[in-house]
Amino acid sequence: MRCVLLSQTLDLRAHLATEIARLKGQITFVDHPDATPDAIEMAVAWYPPADAFAHYPNLKAVCSIAAGADSILHCPSLREGIDVVRVVEPAQAQMMSGFVTWHVIWHQRGFRKHLAHQSARRWERFAQRPARDVPVGILGYGEMGQRVASDLARLGFPVHAWSRTAKPMADNVIGFHGTEGLAAMLREAEVLVNLLPLTPETRGLLDSDLFARMKPGGYVIQVGRGEHLVEADLLAALDSGQLAGASLDVFLAEPLPTAHPFWSHPNIVLTPHDACDVSVPAVGQTIEHTANALRAGVRPAHAVDRARGY
Amino acid sequence: MRCVLLSQTLDLRAHLATEIARLKGQITFVDHPDATPDAIEMAVAWYPPADAFAHYPNLKAVCSIAAGADSILHCPSLREGIDVVRVVEPAQAQMMSGFVTWHVIWHQRGFRKHLAHQSARRWERFAQRPARDVPVGILGYGEMGQRVASDLARLGFPVHAWSRTAKPMADNVIGFHGTEGLAAMLREAEVLVNLLPLTPETRGLLDSDLFARMKPGGYVIQVGRGEHLVEADLLAALDSGQLAGASLDVFLAEPLPTAHPFWSHPNIVLTPHDACDVSVPAVGQTIEHTANALRAGVRPAHAVDRARGY
Repeated sequence: MRCVLLSQTLDLRAHLATEIARLKGQITFVDHPDATPDAIEMAVAWYPPADAFAHYPNLKAVCSIAAGADSILHCPSLREGIDVVRVVEPAQAQMMSGFVTWHVIWHQRGFRKHLAHQSARRWERFAQRPARDVPVGILGYGEMGQRVASDLARLGFPVHAWSRTAKPMADNVIGFHGTEGLAAMLREAEVLVNLLPLTPETRGLLDSDLFARMKPGGYVIQVGRGEHLVEADLLAALDSGQLAGASLDVFLAEPLPTAHPFWSHPNIVLTPHDACDVSVPAVGQTIEHTANALRAGVRPAHAVDRARGY
Repeated sequence: MRCVLLSQTLDLRAHLATEIARLKGQITFVDHPDATPDAIEMAVAWYPPADAFAHYPNLKAVCSIAAGADSILHCPSLREGIDVVRVVEPAQAQMMSGFVTWHVIWHQRGFRKHLAHQSARRWERFAQRPARDVPVGILGYGEMGQRVASDLARLGFPVHAWSRTAKPMADNVIGFHGTEGLAAMLREAEVLVNLLPLTPETRGLLDSDLFARMKPGGYVIQVGRGEHLVEADLLAALDSGQLAGASLDVFLAEPLPTAHPFWSHPNIVLTPHDACDVSVPAVGQTIEHTANALRAGVRPAHAVDRARGY
């Protein structure tokens, strides 16, 4: 099996070095543009060049190196009929859950204030709200959303989860779906966690209109994709006090430009898109399973529903 | 029932105002020193004056206003035969669990570094360790320890819990007990959470000797009592690098004196003894149930085993 590496932003050969070595003999990894393009049946991609897929007429499947595959799905040269495969690793949902939990409690327990008091050598107790008084709303109820919802419910937070279509919900998680469900959930949520996939419907969803439908003094945890958020609207909602704060891990431009106002905003805590990473061995396994599926003539596991977009 | 309020550090009449009003008719709350001491059958106390209990020859029970009762148990005038009652509120263990979870993840995910990078407008991803690589040891397996252990295990941390005597353990929690068990647990723990009661055996337990038995680069979360920790030993262990950091909520002297080195230590995060508070209604309920038990001539629920000290 011949597999081409396609990325504008990352040296995939270096990133995947241990797995490329492990899979030697099973899979031949070549660089783009490959000299024998007709022989390429699969690719590993991350922010591929716009015309990349046009070079490979016999390409059957593309593996992402993460849970998200939107940088591949949005590539203009991606033809119908090519399977796009996500990396699904159970530990990743757990990692996301711990990350989100930290930010929910940061807001609930006023840790920004605690850290400021420590800097000022100021001993000051303030009212500590129990988890039951801090309702959380989760946008997206896939592997990540389900895990985050269950873990937060267990810590005592009232949890409301929204998904595009109705889904069975875990104990202690109240489910919402569709447009009306979204409005109803936003009325309940003090903390809003974005774990949606990026699709034409969800692009720009986190905007002034949405923030205005949340409880005043709400908090946003943005761990979806940068394109979900209208950045100027977030700043306006923070400055008006409609939002008390935000935790941001993903951005329209990454790395976030040095002059961006998010860096120094007193009510934003930001991290460099590292809420959760899949491990390199998990990427290697996905590549291996995809190659096996192609050899067997079956559809690879974790292939995206391209019409739906995730 | 006549109940005296005993505290050197807190205005209990103001603190408990809503519950004192609610219990009017059932219980008469009087201030110390009461003019008719023989009529006093119960007390509510928090850091009571050293000679307080000597005034009340017919006192049968003292309610704390928190989960801890050591400020009462250590009062020199407390006679044998007086029951000391703790406040037990399920939401409190949940609150403690969220608090401890936040500090465990603060260490695991390098949030101090993230915050520093944000201040410096520096976009820098660094290795993110999954929970399974960060073993946690918990000292104490009462209501709080059990809750913290189960919640951390659910988030994927390997959890080891130590108690004085053997206890049945929850799924995914490895139990240790006794002196040899303590040594074995310390060898496993990267993060050590102190949730022990304060007794003569546990006073000063967190010292150089204990830190030296942990993995190098460990982390201490101190949410027990200030007297558990030898403060100079903690500073030495942080400065030698044996410990990477510490989260401290309780101190030998509270409020922590302004000149104390903990305030400005770069690897300490401190909070003003507010990891978890019981609610005023829960204190009121404890007082009410204790009064009912005295009227019925039975031992109040949640009375401390005075020989054991908790």
